[in-house]
Amino acid sequence: MADEALFQFLHSEIIQYVNSVESGESENGRCVSKLESMGFRVGQGLIERHISDCRFTKDTPRFKDELDFMKFICKDFWTSVFKKQIDNLRTNHQGIYVLQDNKFRLLSQLSSGKQYLEHAPKFLAFTCGLVRGALSNLGVKSIVTAEVSVMPACKFQVMIQKM
Amino acid sequence: MADEALFQFLHSEIIQYVNSVESGESENGRCVSKLESMGFRVGQGLIERHISDCRFTKDTPRFKDELDFMKFICKDFWTSVFKKQIDNLRTNHQGIYVLQDNKFRLLSQLSSGKQYLEHAPKFLAFTCGLVRGALSNLGVKSIVTAEVSVMPACKFQVMIQKM
Repeated sequence: MADEALFQFLHSEIIQYVNSVESGESENGRCVSKLESMGFRVGQGLIERHISDCRFTKDTPRFKDELDFMKFICKDFWTSVFKKQIDNLRTNHQGIYVLQDNKFRLLSQLSSGKQYLEHAPKFLAFTCGLVRGALSNLGVKSIVTAEVSVMPACKFQVMIQKM
Repeated sequence: MADEALFQFLHSEIIQYVNSVESGESENGRCVSKLESMGFRVGQGLIERHISDCRFTKDTPRFKDELDFMKFICKDFWTSVFKKQIDNLRTNHQGIYVLQDNKFRLLSQLSSGKQYLEHAPKFLAFTCGLVRGALSNLGVKSIVTAEVSVMPACKFQVMIQKM
């Protein structure tokens, strides 16, 4: 049995539940922010676990610069969560990185068509938090946003916050 | 990076969130029932996906009786979700099955000690639903309950509902 599906189904249950709970005027905003903070804590947890596993195997990850952190997110981290690497990484060399996933797994449940684009932020919020949480536990403060151009492709923009 | 952790962290976020939302008099009961129904839908989804994968590979699963269904849950299904098999399966041959997991992954976050036992139902509800949902999509109606004796061991009792 394939186990990637577990994360997808669970993620979709969370969106539905959070969406049903966080109702009110700024409904969509609260739902997105709640999902983002859940992702943040999960991202932190995954990196903590990874670092402690590395200590155990004495295979400590070494990062020489910011770009190294981002490569780790695009390869190891993305593969662990989404079973594929990020397809394209771009940077302006001034702290902004754009990670493009041409077939983002968590958008596959959402039907394509412009009328569904308005729901996309809910399907991307958890992952924005996941990346921000992972980077945060690697000692890098960031702001992460996402946008969909043509489903199921999407871009995550990471702005590194200089200390 | 190990990916089992993703499910564990996400599961724990859901418990925290549902618990914070479903407050009131029968707080614990509503939280448990909400988690159970989330598990139910995820279990259904996993089996749907599995059956459609099997059709694709023409490797259709065959079950000759009730016990065969339960063995599938204890081996394939459990391994896919929890990365280990159920340690012990017992039955009274009258529709009651007891599945014992000696080191249940989703209890590992919960500290041992009797004072934490009262929180155990929240940590087991999603999985009860998961099993019930999986069996339901295999055409078997059931009631699934769980109990912890000594953490992190626990037993899931499945009562098959005869049609």
